[in-house]
Amino acid sequence: MNISKRAMEMNFSPIRKLIPLAEEAEKKGVKVYKLNIGQPNIVTPDSFFEGLHNYKEKIVTYSDSKGILKLRESFVKSYKASGIDIDVDDILITQGGSEAIFFILMSICNEGDEILVPEPFYSNYSSFSIFAGANVKPIPTTIENNFHLPPKEEIEKLITPKTRAIMFSNPVNPTGTVYTEDEIKMIGEIAEKHDLYIIADEVYRQFVYDSTPYMSTMKMKEIENRVVLVDSISKHYSACGARIGLIASKNHELMNYILKFCQARLCVSTIEQHAAANLINTMDSYLEDVRIKYKSRRDLLYGYLKRIPGVVCSKPQGAFYIFAKLPVDNAEKFAKWLLTDYSYEGKTILIAPGPGFYFTDGKGDQEVRFSFCTNIEDIENAMIVLRRALEEYNKQ
Amino acid sequence: MNISKRAMEMNFSPIRKLIPLAEEAEKKGVKVYKLNIGQPNIVTPDSFFEGLHNYKEKIVTYSDSKGILKLRESFVKSYKASGIDIDVDDILITQGGSEAIFFILMSICNEGDEILVPEPFYSNYSSFSIFAGANVKPIPTTIENNFHLPPKEEIEKLITPKTRAIMFSNPVNPTGTVYTEDEIKMIGEIAEKHDLYIIADEVYRQFVYDSTPYMSTMKMKEIENRVVLVDSISKHYSACGARIGLIASKNHELMNYILKFCQARLCVSTIEQHAAANLINTMDSYLEDVRIKYKSRRDLLYGYLKRIPGVVCSKPQGAFYIFAKLPVDNAEKFAKWLLTDYSYEGKTILIAPGPGFYFTDGKGDQEVRFSFCTNIEDIENAMIVLRRALEEYNKQ
Ligand SMILES: Cc1ncc(COP(=O)(O)O)c(C=O)c1O
Ligand SMILES: Cc1ncc(COP(=O)(O)O)c(C=O)c1O
Repeated sequence: MNISKRAMEMNFSPIRKLIPLAEEAEKKGVKVYKLNIGQPNIVTPDSFFEGLHNYKEKIVTYSDSKGILKLRESFVKSYKASGIDIDVDDILITQGGSEAIFFILMSICNEGDEILVPEPFYSNYSSFSIFAGANVKPIPTTIENNFHLPPKEEIEKLITPKTRAIMFSNPVNPTGTVYTEDEIKMIGEIAEKHDLYIIADEVYRQFVYDSTPYMSTMKMKEIENRVVLVDSISKHYSACGARIGLIASKNHELMNYILKFCQARLCVSTIEQHAAANLINTMDSYLEDVRIKYKSRRDLLYGYLKRIPGVVCSKPQGAFYIFAKLPVDNAEKFAKWLLTDYSYEGKTILIAPGPGFYFTDGKGDQEVRFSFCTNIEDIENAMIVLRRALEEYNKQ
Repeated sequence: MNISKRAMEMNFSPIRKLIPLAEEAEKKGVKVYKLNIGQPNIVTPDSFFEGLHNYKEKIVTYSDSKGILKLRESFVKSYKASGIDIDVDDILITQGGSEAIFFILMSICNEGDEILVPEPFYSNYSSFSIFAGANVKPIPTTIENNFHLPPKEEIEKLITPKTRAIMFSNPVNPTGTVYTEDEIKMIGEIAEKHDLYIIADEVYRQFVYDSTPYMSTMKMKEIENRVVLVDSISKHYSACGARIGLIASKNHELMNYILKFCQARLCVSTIEQHAAANLINTMDSYLEDVRIKYKSRRDLLYGYLKRIPGVVCSKPQGAFYIFAKLPVDNAEKFAKWLLTDYSYEGKTILIAPGPGFYFTDGKGDQEVRFSFCTNIEDIENAMIVLRRALEEYNKQ
């Protein structure tokens, strides 16, 4: 029976692909340290649960397709605190950042249109592009250059009449790179010159370390009509399972088209929206704490990785990932081997192989993403295992 | 800047379109009885809220992209009770029936493929088809025939090499029609002969009155590989805002493709899934009560409509809608007029004009959908207004 081309083309999540092997290892009694996923282990703020329990309606009704006003207001407040000018009318609440990206691409891309994305990138960008019939056109970045953007001319060379947008996360998943103000402005200039949208995925916006300057794409007032922001409470508030995200843009013509998609799926979970709206009460102090925690975990992970012979990586300025080059022939083979053939004192690790974050075949073969949103002991133990495992693997 | 063809093609919700006019009427102090939407006013079961409050995890984590096991098990139990054989492995939990329909169409349709849908139909079927690049091919049904299906030959005439599926809700939104066993079997035969999927949207399955026999499409074991079920707690448990639905199918090849879409959006709200899983505790008695309530509301609404001169309708056997033909020149004009120009003793009504449920231009011009998921007094008051309004409207 018929299966659509897009369904065949899409990949299973590269991050989740190794999970069955990890489960088998666990069945054999091996302890598996999971540094593969972006699921924070920090507790969700109490204010979220308060909001949840304060929902006193007797009927869980559909809510406004745009998102409830209280939640949009609460986001507006939090943007104001970051000096970002977004009004309630500039916001559509979505089922996580995921649905936000998907609706944006569905609204701007026809079959065969192209989206420029700095590579490596969050792997579901490919999936959502396939949903919308669009093709990802990777902008190459390298570990040697800390995954910063190539010069303007390099990017412009990739633009064709079918290019519709430049899409990126900032801070970047999987590399933790934070784009400089100059880089953001360069993207703005390119977009302006070639009539492109900028899809700015800032779901890690609050996780920037070492006083690195951070420039939200929404701050480019001159081209605000081109900018579409993706945000989410998943990472910032350790509330991944709440499925609350948003699209924000000053381009109300576009937003009005996106609203059609919002209406078709009726609404976002009503109670979760109430819970999320209540987060505003703890916002600042909570985020401050979390940043301190992640910074120390980053320092720890980075410190360990740096001391393992042959490992190449730089200290990420944002998000909660380190993207490192390992002294192995093939990162996927190595990641599998860790789960099926290796353990050190009954322990092994689960990591996300690099190729899953690349669109270009053959890239990232020696690279691996480590998350540091797990706890300190797990990071330490995982690094002890990794060091030994690399020695052992390369002896063979 | 570029807007996709699909975004331009999609319509704003025809049901929500009149809401601004209703809000204006309300601002002027007019009481508006809302018989336009499928938002039940019956309270959500306590067990749902218990499930919600029993969620004691400290972190709201992502959950399994397939849906949490406990919820899938709870659905399996409820199907068993209805004599429907569905296992946990046959189920993918979705963000409402909405996402279920969308993922199914995305997985089976390429650009330009066709989906047969008995007309009138739930208007978002058009939207989701546009999402997937597919075209709705309406199967005409008529008020004279109580919106039952035409003969097999009529349906087969509509099939082309691009036809991929027959999609319908049963009981039907907007007509309340319940297909007979013979009709379901006929659909099965057509699907088998022409190699089509059957997308059976049974989100009103539990609302069948007067001991009308109901045959779930999942009961056709011989062709189970073709059947894809859509279900949801929205209507059955008055939990529309929870956004919990599902796809069920014995076709695991297809389900495995659909899983890719589930993985791309990561998961369905974790806490809402726990809440929904707890519904199983009150399931039977609750549904029994609700059925009795809706039956009496239906009898009331039907009784009133029947006595208004010129109104044509039949008593629906399922769901909570009556689709009636009114003695007016144009139902859309009439529906607007009710909100902008009319009130009786300070009251008016909001109804869903027929054309919104038709794909074919010019159809449903005199038809209107009334919901009876509101309370008894509203129905009574609305009918008093309607009777007077029709007299007044036709005097002009
Ligand atoms: C860069 C980026 N964008 C978007 C998402 C989607 O997250 P959510 O749908 O939970 O908001 C993720 C999740 O890992 C991500 O890393
Ligand atoms: C026939 C039918 N299918 C599906 C849906 C979608 O409902 P939900 O996404 O809330 O499950 C509706 C909602 O009105 C409906 O009437």
